Amino acid sequence: MRGDASRRILGGSAVSETIISTDVVEKSNAAREADLERDYASLGERLDRRGIAIDAIRDKVEKFAVAIPSWGVGTGGTRFARFPGTGEPRDIFDKIEDCAVISQLTQATPTVSLHIPWDRADPNRLKQAASRFGLGFDAMNSNTFSDAKDQKLSYKFGSLSHADAGTRRQAVEHNLECIEIGKTLGSKALTVWIGDGSNFPGQVNFAKAFERYLDSMREIYASLPDDWRLFTEHKMYEPAFYSTVVQDWGTNYIIAKELGDKALCLVDLGHHAPNVNIEMIVSRLIQFGKLGGFHFNDSKYGDDDLDAGSIDPYRLFLVFNELVDAELLGAKGFHPAHMLDQSHNVTDPIESLMLSAVEVQRAYAQALLVDRTTLEGFQDDNDALMATQTLKSAYRTDVEPILAMARLKTGGAIDPVAAYRQAGYRAKVAAERPAVAGGGGGIV
Amino acid sequence: MRGDASRRILGGSAVSETIISTDVVEKSNAAREADLERDYASLGERLDRRGIAIDAIRDKVEKFAVAIPSWGVGTGGTRFARFPGTGEPRDIFDKIEDCAVISQLTQATPTVSLHIPWDRADPNRLKQAASRFGLGFDAMNSNTFSDAKDQKLSYKFGSLSHADAGTRRQAVEHNLECIEIGKTLGSKALTVWIGDGSNFPGQVNFAKAFERYLDSMREIYASLPDDWRLFTEHKMYEPAFYSTVVQDWGTNYIIAKELGDKALCLVDLGHHAPNVNIEMIVSRLIQFGKLGGFHFNDSKYGDDDLDAGSIDPYRLFLVFNELVDAELLGAKGFHPAHMLDQSHNVTDPIESLMLSAVEVQRAYAQALLVDRTTLEGFQDDNDALMATQTLKSAYRTDVEPILAMARLKTGGAIDPVAAYRQAGYRAKVAAERPAVAGGGGGIV
Amino acid sequence: MRGDASRRILGGSAVSETIISTDVVEKSNAAREADLERDYASLGERLDRRGIAIDAIRDKVEKFAVAIPSWGVGTGGTRFARFPGTGEPRDIFDKIEDCAVISQLTQATPTVSLHIPWDRADPNRLKQAASRFGLGFDAMNSNTFSDAKDQKLSYKFGSLSHADAGTRRQAVEHNLECIEIGKTLGSKALTVWIGDGSNFPGQVNFAKAFERYLDSMREIYASLPDDWRLFTEHKMYEPAFYSTVVQDWGTNYIIAKELGDKALCLVDLGHHAPNVNIEMIVSRLIQFGKLGGFHFNDSKYGDDDLDAGSIDPYRLFLVFNELVDAELLGAKGFHPAHMLDQSHNVTDPIESLMLSAVEVQRAYAQALLVDRTTLEGFQDDNDALMATQTLKSAYRTDVEPILAMARLKTGGAIDPVAAYRQAGYRAKVAAERPAVAGGGGGIV
Amino acid sequence: MRGDASRRILGGSAVSETIISTDVVEKSNAAREADLERDYASLGERLDRRGIAIDAIRDKVEKFAVAIPSWGVGTGGTRFARFPGTGEPRDIFDKIEDCAVISQLTQATPTVSLHIPWDRADPNRLKQAASRFGLGFDAMNSNTFSDAKDQKLSYKFGSLSHADAGTRRQAVEHNLECIEIGKTLGSKALTVWIGDGSNFPGQVNFAKAFERYLDSMREIYASLPDDWRLFTEHKMYEPAFYSTVVQDWGTNYIIAKELGDKALCLVDLGHHAPNVNIEMIVSRLIQFGKLGGFHFNDSKYGDDDLDAGSIDPYRLFLVFNELVDAELLGAKGFHPAHMLDQSHNVTDPIESLMLSAVEVQRAYAQALLVDRTTLEGFQDDNDALMATQTLKSAYRTDVEPILAMARLKTGGAIDPVAAYRQAGYRAKVAAERPAVAGGGGGIV
Repeated sequence: MRGDASRRILGGSAVSETIISTDVVEKSNAAREADLERDYASLGERLDRRGIAIDAIRDKVEKFAVAIPSWGVGTGGTRFARFPGTGEPRDIFDKIEDCAVISQLTQATPTVSLHIPWDRADPNRLKQAASRFGLGFDAMNSNTFSDAKDQKLSYKFGSLSHADAGTRRQAVEHNLECIEIGKTLGSKALTVWIGDGSNFPGQVNFAKAFERYLDSMREIYASLPDDWRLFTEHKMYEPAFYSTVVQDWGTNYIIAKELGDKALCLVDLGHHAPNVNIEMIVSRLIQFGKLGGFHFNDSKYGDDDLDAGSIDPYRLFLVFNELVDAELLGAKGFHPAHMLDQSHNVTDPIESLMLSAVEVQRAYAQALLVDRTTLEGFQDDNDALMATQTLKSAYRTDVEPILAMARLKTGGAIDPVAAYRQAGYRAKVAAERPAVAGGGGGIV
Repeated sequence: MRGDASRRILGGSAVSETIISTDVVEKSNAAREADLERDYASLGERLDRRGIAIDAIRDKVEKFAVAIPSWGVGTGGTRFARFPGTGEPRDIFDKIEDCAVISQLTQATPTVSLHIPWDRADPNRLKQAASRFGLGFDAMNSNTFSDAKDQKLSYKFGSLSHADAGTRRQAVEHNLECIEIGKTLGSKALTVWIGDGSNFPGQVNFAKAFERYLDSMREIYASLPDDWRLFTEHKMYEPAFYSTVVQDWGTNYIIAKELGDKALCLVDLGHHAPNVNIEMIVSRLIQFGKLGGFHFNDSKYGDDDLDAGSIDPYRLFLVFNELVDAELLGAKGFHPAHMLDQSHNVTDPIESLMLSAVEVQRAYAQALLVDRTTLEGFQDDNDALMATQTLKSAYRTDVEPILAMARLKTGGAIDPVAAYRQAGYRAKVAAERPAVAGGGGGIV
Repeated sequence: MRGDASRRILGGSAVSETIISTDVVEKSNAAREADLERDYASLGERLDRRGIAIDAIRDKVEKFAVAIPSWGVGTGGTRFARFPGTGEPRDIFDKIEDCAVISQLTQATPTVSLHIPWDRADPNRLKQAASRFGLGFDAMNSNTFSDAKDQKLSYKFGSLSHADAGTRRQAVEHNLECIEIGKTLGSKALTVWIGDGSNFPGQVNFAKAFERYLDSMREIYASLPDDWRLFTEHKMYEPAFYSTVVQDWGTNYIIAKELGDKALCLVDLGHHAPNVNIEMIVSRLIQFGKLGGFHFNDSKYGDDDLDAGSIDPYRLFLVFNELVDAELLGAKGFHPAHMLDQSHNVTDPIESLMLSAVEVQRAYAQALLVDRTTLEGFQDDNDALMATQTLKSAYRTDVEPILAMARLKTGGAIDPVAAYRQAGYRAKVAAERPAVAGGGGGIV
Repeated sequence: MRGDASRRILGGSAVSETIISTDVVEKSNAAREADLERDYASLGERLDRRGIAIDAIRDKVEKFAVAIPSWGVGTGGTRFARFPGTGEPRDIFDKIEDCAVISQLTQATPTVSLHIPWDRADPNRLKQAASRFGLGFDAMNSNTFSDAKDQKLSYKFGSLSHADAGTRRQAVEHNLECIEIGKTLGSKALTVWIGDGSNFPGQVNFAKAFERYLDSMREIYASLPDDWRLFTEHKMYEPAFYSTVVQDWGTNYIIAKELGDKALCLVDLGHHAPNVNIEMIVSRLIQFGKLGGFHFNDSKYGDDDLDAGSIDPYRLFLVFNELVDAELLGAKGFHPAHMLDQSHNVTDPIESLMLSAVEVQRAYAQALLVDRTTLEGFQDDNDALMATQTLKSAYRTDVEPILAMARLKTGGAIDPVAAYRQAGYRAKVAAERPAVAGGGGGIV
């Protein structure tokens, strides 16, 4: 399971430029290598007793990839305020450099996912900038949830589902433009998330709005290249606070069915109602051939966009338990896209993204350790206790040595944050990139 | 909109036996009729100003019907305890009498919905017992969420989705038996709600369990008479506390699509995740031709099974706003079944059911008052404020005179609870029906 | 019950300047007065039958007041985008004019609540600007949840609870400044809401952070004039997404107890966990002498800041049921402050605030109709059904004629939105106030 | 931290009778000991590098204790059904034997917590039965949430807060009886959880009901022996579905403050609103000297009473992070009671309780590994990323070798479930204890 973009083709850091000095990385690794070797051997011995070859797991981990969203490397915020960090990227080219740092140190994030219009630039220049660091491009993201400068018609009352045909047309065309840009960049997917909905009962007619949305999406789908996929993303609420057009996986599933085989559902872990069993939704979408991919993050209350695995790491593991199950069963058409989608309000975004990529890898590695034959036996015998212990004993395994060894073997850092801090990257770019104003406070 | 069963055929209290003395009802009405006439006239004048003919609304209300679940007339409880009331029904024949009281006084509940095996009895005797009071039978309800006495295989670990083929077969056959009984009774629908699920991550394989469920349901569907409908009911959790096989409307929709045209989704208002927009789910199911009907009740926390409209009456109105919209648009195949499904732990069940039936009627009547042409205009103009005020001004109308007049005209009571208390029904049956032991306390 | 500020002193529109031409208002009223008189008389007759004198209710409604937050008259937004309206207020003086419109047409909002630093201006000029329209000032609101321009130390990691003593001092001093400004303006309360908290487990030590918060608050409390009150506001989450220092009423109650008699709890209806029974919290705070007041709004998911009563009007009524109970019992020290606190993203803020003020009045009027003697009897008899029906029959009463008559009698508009639209106020200010840029989109 | 009851005194399995043959345990351990020694050594080496002495951790784990609720060893159920297991305990003496098995194999559960009237028996006989296996008694639990046979007045409408003084008196006296029984048994605490509340708005007057509750509790408190503690337990909902008298920690805190120093709050992990930050509540109660103890379990939706740590193990760790913090700081009066409180619907209760006790120990052991000096530094520097990683690196450590070694050293089983199954205990008691009927199904 490698995410949408292939590391084989896009990776290969050996021939790419690196931003963090390899000296720094090597020195950092040198100080940790002996301990890692010992821990890896000791874990290998313990896994061996359970019938698991540690190197096989490490191989799979090495091939696992998750995309970085371009907007994730800037400091996030809330409607109340945004507190900028230092050295924030000024444009998409700075963002690509930040992504290159993440990729270099983790060796787990070979692609960047762009957001139009925020990242609009000459596509060829973009491609060059990325390939310099061995980076490729993941899914394109359109934006009709805010008004761009000089935009003719406003999305205040909706975009693809707007009551006005002209506004819908404008939104459709924006999506078509995203596809065009993506073609040049080598992207193979378009992700559509809209904020359309309502704040008051009666503000919109649910059925009519959804019909209009489907009509708009049919136009976009018709322009999709044959080897592309179309991901639609559901979300319960925010920015709309009474109803949202694509509010849950049920509606998302209907969309994907109505549009066709290239249309698939994207699951953002923070976009569900409280208490919902997300891993079960993942299973359903796999079973009916409609899982497109993920926006990974974590949350405690709503769409908090916290770092993946920071609040409920077992939930992330249970999601991967489904993914690994499908991977091993060779579920038809199963190759979900993986992307982080987080808001880093109080941390250095590069650090958070590095550790979040590792956290996603960790869940994947742990899920690979599940003894699925034994599990199946317990399930068939209704031995609920031993079945759940089978998952737990995989989850409890500290796989950090596997992840670190995978990084070491592919040119990354055993301890990415330590190497990053040692390299002084943030201070360096802070000197180059002028401070950005904070903000928010008016949007309450 | 009249619910699944037709009042025209099944109603007609004039020729049926009544349980509450008509003297009592007439005396109770006589004391209230003058005020009602005045209030009806005054409301009529106000509605007239809004372009609405009050008699037309009353006509529709008179035709509106909601079924009573046989189990609803007994006192409910929780896993901690059940505190019985007095005069509790001893069997289905007592229950039918209680239902007849509700029907007589409200003239809104012409049918009873049976639950097998709880209500198992000679179908012909059942039919006779009901028709004596002009009552008919609504959807049949199967039960594979608890073990019946002398049942061969246990449903502890599931029924229609059980890992064991024999257990699944037993559950399928139980459903087929329910259809058979229903045929005799004149029922035209089977409602399937199961508790299948798991309490621990890993206890069941989501995909396999759902495939087994679908296979079982396909067998049941195959035995469904041509003029029947099959209702499946989703529920987020309880009795299973980690995963539930039919957990939400997304899964329920897939089931209905997989099975065929006679398969439809049943919506219980208390079976959703916190904060979920239920009226939107109702709209989606209508739009895609899969709304089968409702289990009405209200809730604040989980599946609290409180009296309809007792916690959030505006939500009930918003659901009916969707239903009336569909009715007026003549949505294809739209004739949802209405049933109350409540647990009466601290009230006299007959009183709660009477007022709940009235509450559902009330939401229907209020929704009929919505000025839909004006609303559409506001929606097209994105005038959110006036759109929502259009709903609110219908909702704020106190339609009690319409409901009371509908009851008066059809032989019911202007004030059903007052008439019921005056008649001393509960004391009378308490003398005949021995006290039942309380319980619970062991199931914690 | 009149809210903190007294209409008697601050109101009196007769002698104040009006912004909307009185001709427009009179014409609008003239077209509606005959119907209103008839509806008022008819409602009066029905209430009379229930033993209620309609004029007494109207008198109470006339005296009821709710403050307008200065920030509410601008268009709100989310972290994703803000879609500005036309004619948005440029500064606090424009905001005061908008508030004057609301006050003139509803006669229910005699005061404005300021937010520092957003509304910082010469206090005497502010006072003059407000008194010109007969407006007074409600509670002062400090802001340490965002960084003001030229602020020395950042609140990125907290303010009153910050680990750094200097940052806490700065935050304390800001609050002291708010008190100073408020003294000149005639305000009698300071409301403190902070965003302090954490986004990650371990980021802050809960106990130490709370101790630091309490120490800071003790300093602020020490500077509070004798006739002022200090309101602290709890909120479950946002902008902090893992923990919040003042997360619920339990912590808020402890704060108020620790600080002293002038410290009271402020309840924002949207700041609680899903499903929480807010009216019960209100009751507890009244019972233990710690209810300071309200930020009214409505919500479906989180702190959605929707218009009061737009999502769950019965909940608003149930809150007022507690308030009226306390008012009638003469609960010691009971005089809660009332303020709207909403975000108007898709409506004209003036229209939303007018109708929201009316909606709060409506809940108050309905709660006044509850037959409390009868209710007490049902409660003592455990007649749950009739007890809840007693509330419902008050709630179901359409009190619009009372509210409209109260407006008419005090110089407001029978239909505030109609009069406002007829006056063309928005178009007029749009011509004077330049369009403001939208925004958001970077804060995701 | 050892829970309320001291293992030193009550434990000492050497001199107690054992139920599971020591041969079986020794054989089971022998097969696992070599691997355990190796894993313990390897973990020791890794911890040593982090400056942690593994034996010191193991010592603390050995002293950690959690009580078993007598009702937990029977199979639980829901209002829909109860599916009994085999060999279910017939009475409290069977339950004590089951508890002895748990204690023998885990060496972590030296006490039993009784529930009156379910466990009513001659106290001296009870004491003898328990001490035979080296077991002591934890907190006594009263029951006024269900009606006992032959009880004079019903708790249908409340107990300690009932409107009727006689019913309140009966409930108070029941609690006094629990204290009396406990005195003989050597218990040192009374836990009071009531189901009092309401199902309908208006059914009870919140303030009056709470005042009555407080009055009743004052009477109970007055009879508490000097060396006892009184634990009150809050719960959001169920069995009451609109309001609950002791609904949250805010109300619980007020109760404890009103009653006096011996009154403390009990936290059941499943009794909170969705999304609530429970570890923060724990911190607040510790800070203000009012944390009495815990009912451990896990939940996904409501009060699901699932096995501790089975759904969100990180949350359990975060709770223990607070507890260990307080233990290390020597928080005044800090010695919380630990008890499991779970419902085992689909597993063998003995197995679930053994693994749940181990899971609680696990969270304790992991929390002991947190480098608190380093953490404090990160907190003071607002290094959110490294602070949370400090917790995570402790949490990720697989401490199973420490727990297993603690068991081995104290006479328990390295793998308690394996030893238990090998011993064939369930089959043995199934032969002795007749099958119990299932149930539920009427309480819907």
